[in-house]
Amino acid sequence: MAEDVEVRRRPGGRSARVVAAVHEAVDALLAEAGPGGFTVADVARRAGVNPTSVYRRWGSLEAVILDVEAARLAETAPMPDTGSLRGDLLAYARQAAAEIARPGRLAFLQALIGAADMTAEQRQSFLVQRAMQFQGMLDRSRERGEPLMDFTVIVDCILAPIYLRHLLGLGVSDADLELFVARAFTAK
Amino acid sequence: MAEDVEVRRRPGGRSARVVAAVHEAVDALLAEAGPGGFTVADVARRAGVNPTSVYRRWGSLEAVILDVEAARLAETAPMPDTGSLRGDLLAYARQAAAEIARPGRLAFLQALIGAADMTAEQRQSFLVQRAMQFQGMLDRSRERGEPLMDFTVIVDCILAPIYLRHLLGLGVSDADLELFVARAFTAK
Repeated sequence: MAEDVEVRRRPGGRSARVVAAVHEAVDALLAEAGPGGFTVADVARRAGVNPTSVYRRWGSLEAVILDVEAARLAETAPMPDTGSLRGDLLAYARQAAAEIARPGRLAFLQALIGAADMTAEQRQSFLVQRAMQFQGMLDRSRERGEPLMDFTVIVDCILAPIYLRHLLGLGVSDADLELFVARAFTAK
Repeated sequence: MAEDVEVRRRPGGRSARVVAAVHEAVDALLAEAGPGGFTVADVARRAGVNPTSVYRRWGSLEAVILDVEAARLAETAPMPDTGSLRGDLLAYARQAAAEIARPGRLAFLQALIGAADMTAEQRQSFLVQRAMQFQGMLDRSRERGEPLMDFTVIVDCILAPIYLRHLLGLGVSDADLELFVARAFTAK
């Protein structure tokens, strides 16, 4: 099993090339047609792969989009390391608030909402990579002897209001972001 | 201007019939095709009205969906009146958590995300009706001499984590809902 994963991930392998081609195709289609503007068949055609390869690996269009968006987030939104948990969280919150205001950056939320039949496990898979990066931030904080914080508190108190306020057209000022971070520290 | 609004809203008037027919058509199409599965032309055909009437009144498909969903929320999710703000908020949170788990009930979020070119004012219009109902709850609370709470605190601390946790496949237990309400009371 571990061997299989290693083989699949080997750079330059056939599967790695399929993944890279599909990611590139989805990126381009998201930019051109927007989320909801293309199908798995479009992705496959553009990537030069068989649609069944896409379904076999990802299962649905929404799952492909989530995968691409998770990879993009990991690349374009590195975890800050400012020397304190409060500083890290505030820097992350500022980055997230700026990012979602850019066009097309809510594709992952749209995929999550559009995929009515996606299981809780499939939804969580989007979070796993991100949660692991947050864990690094939280581990550094613990090593410095700062108060412990759970990842779900970050989701509830910081990420959730940034996203919902944006969707509802309520602005988020820098003072609001400081407030969200402060709430995360007082949250039970 | 006021007269025009009164005429437009007169029950049985031509405009009232258009609104009712369009709402009914959108309701049916949301159930059959899901959000993203139909166009303004489909709505107009089904409602037996001219597409230009739909564009003139609402401006976009997303705006029509938001209007229909706001009306449905007002009908199906009445504001609780339990005798305390804490009780009202917990009852509302339970109602919201149960509601979004039902199929098709995230149409309004999808409309908000899909409408990239919707202005902040248009996004807020969805909230206005709901905010006014919350204001009744908050007014009763003030009259009882309870601590003051702002509507945005309810959005940030209670509604946002319920929605985002659902989308991310993280469960929301009843204990979580109590926690969200408690956080709203301690939030600055």
